[in-house]
Amino acid sequence: MSEGGIFERAAALFSTLQEEICAGLEELDGVGRFTADGWQREGGGGGLSRVLTGGRLFEKAGVNWSRVEGDLPAEFAAQIPGSGTAFSASGVSLVLHPGSPMMPTVHANFRFLEKGDKAWFGGGSDLTPYYLFRDDAIHFHRTWQAACTAHPDVADYRRFKSWCDEYFFLPHRGERRGVGGIFFDYLDGAGAGGLEAVLAFAAEAGRAFLPAYRPIAMRRAGEQYDERERQWQLVRRGRYVEFNLVYDRGTVFGLKTRGRTESVLMSLPPLVRWEYDPGDPAPGSREAELLEVLRNPVDWLDLGGSAEPSSNH
Amino acid sequence: MSEGGIFERAAALFSTLQEEICAGLEELDGVGRFTADGWQREGGGGGLSRVLTGGRLFEKAGVNWSRVEGDLPAEFAAQIPGSGTAFSASGVSLVLHPGSPMMPTVHANFRFLEKGDKAWFGGGSDLTPYYLFRDDAIHFHRTWQAACTAHPDVADYRRFKSWCDEYFFLPHRGERRGVGGIFFDYLDGAGAGGLEAVLAFAAEAGRAFLPAYRPIAMRRAGEQYDERERQWQLVRRGRYVEFNLVYDRGTVFGLKTRGRTESVLMSLPPLVRWEYDPGDPAPGSREAELLEVLRNPVDWLDLGGSAEPSSNH
Repeated sequence: MSEGGIFERAAALFSTLQEEICAGLEELDGVGRFTADGWQREGGGGGLSRVLTGGRLFEKAGVNWSRVEGDLPAEFAAQIPGSGTAFSASGVSLVLHPGSPMMPTVHANFRFLEKGDKAWFGGGSDLTPYYLFRDDAIHFHRTWQAACTAHPDVADYRRFKSWCDEYFFLPHRGERRGVGGIFFDYLDGAGAGGLEAVLAFAAEAGRAFLPAYRPIAMRRAGEQYDERERQWQLVRRGRYVEFNLVYDRGTVFGLKTRGRTESVLMSLPPLVRWEYDPGDPAPGSREAELLEVLRNPVDWLDLGGSAEPSSNH
Repeated sequence: MSEGGIFERAAALFSTLQEEICAGLEELDGVGRFTADGWQREGGGGGLSRVLTGGRLFEKAGVNWSRVEGDLPAEFAAQIPGSGTAFSASGVSLVLHPGSPMMPTVHANFRFLEKGDKAWFGGGSDLTPYYLFRDDAIHFHRTWQAACTAHPDVADYRRFKSWCDEYFFLPHRGERRGVGGIFFDYLDGAGAGGLEAVLAFAAEAGRAFLPAYRPIAMRRAGEQYDERERQWQLVRRGRYVEFNLVYDRGTVFGLKTRGRTESVLMSLPPLVRWEYDPGDPAPGSREAELLEVLRNPVDWLDLGGSAEPSSNH
């Protein structure tokens, strides 16, 4: 790589983010504590998986850090930028599943990859409510917009927001996974600050996660809910599983590179229900209100339309 | 197609099998009744989905029949035998999820496909226990062996048994989905009776399903179980979801050909749990006994080793 040491610094940043985020989430939860499992990968590298279960707010929360290297299977390597099959990758990845259906599930991931002549950052964060609170979606998007705006040479909120809506889409359901956020990939900083500038953005985005999610969790933790609403959450969690196992790039990457299975699948919800064809919820219901925004993405910050996401992959 | 009318006759057979099997399962359950949802596929064809939920034995049982035709997406068509992209397919597919962890989940599928210059049958049946009863596995395999033995020109139990062990494998878990059964694909009868002979075998195999499963269900319906065993079942059901969404050819085919999503995903269990890294069960426990046979497939009929499955796919 031309920029010596950036892999080390990215890996260290992701490790620090893991620590900070786990500490913040423990404070938020107030009861649950993260366990820590270190693991080694056959073929090179390893990671640290941290999981909190049965908390006051979180039914299951996983924050994973990894730093791996080795060779990709040839067929899979051909689908990824960069020459050859040798790769190095480091990242932090989290999914939080609250117990209450009034609190949204949230995902965030920041990663750095090197393969042959290419090196790039990817990542993002998206929010998956079971009941829609418009203020929450607006706060979430506003936080990511601010992080992007501080790094105009490498980040573009409108583009990353559209990319997120496009990426977290389930074609077989005609729905997005949630109300979006940002998604970006293949950011190599070419022509605009280089990887150093992208690293700075990744650091800022990583540190924006707690401010993006914590106020939402605090607002919704006290909302009442009933058994019917809990069952709706369990069914909707099925969509989360469908997305992750069928479409998610990170999950597929983890399974194909023989990552640690328990860490790759840490993102799956603790309890899930699949009902046969429950049909659409009653018009005007809160469940129908959610489906409407999953089927037709909203410009939460009212910026007047959105830029086209990059589509060359 | 050179053998005019065989598609029609296969589709009719599968429809009859659906009726017979649903009637047999209603009788077995004694309480639950199958609903019937007819559906049309945009692009050609349609099907009939029949589902029983909340029965005495079956928490969720789905038996689907379909007959579809149209054009495959080019990229997907290239992965399937036969020229061009136009295809016709008909099949019957079922998955039964009992409520009791002492009763095994079971799957069966029989299908016929035509694409360009090729036409073939595929299918099989496999058993997924949560607790191992060796007599059940032996009975199940013996029934399929008998069906194969009656059609020696097109069917080979040992080959189909090995193929099943190979197909229903989760590489990321190092486990098979269950204790197997038979699996076959691309049976075109070339050089040995042609498609007529394969159709006769498909009919016999389809009719062997109830005799293969019913005695097992009747024997295990009365077994006592406790909450811990039920939780083990919910976690193991997660493996079923992982297999179907990540690896299963039928599920991928259904989603890629824009089959009816609710029918394609009818196979998913009603309630599922993903725990983070529960670890291996205690040595000597019944749970460990199950894992042992999932990791190391057993020659249930003690035929002294098994033939190599065909690997040209």
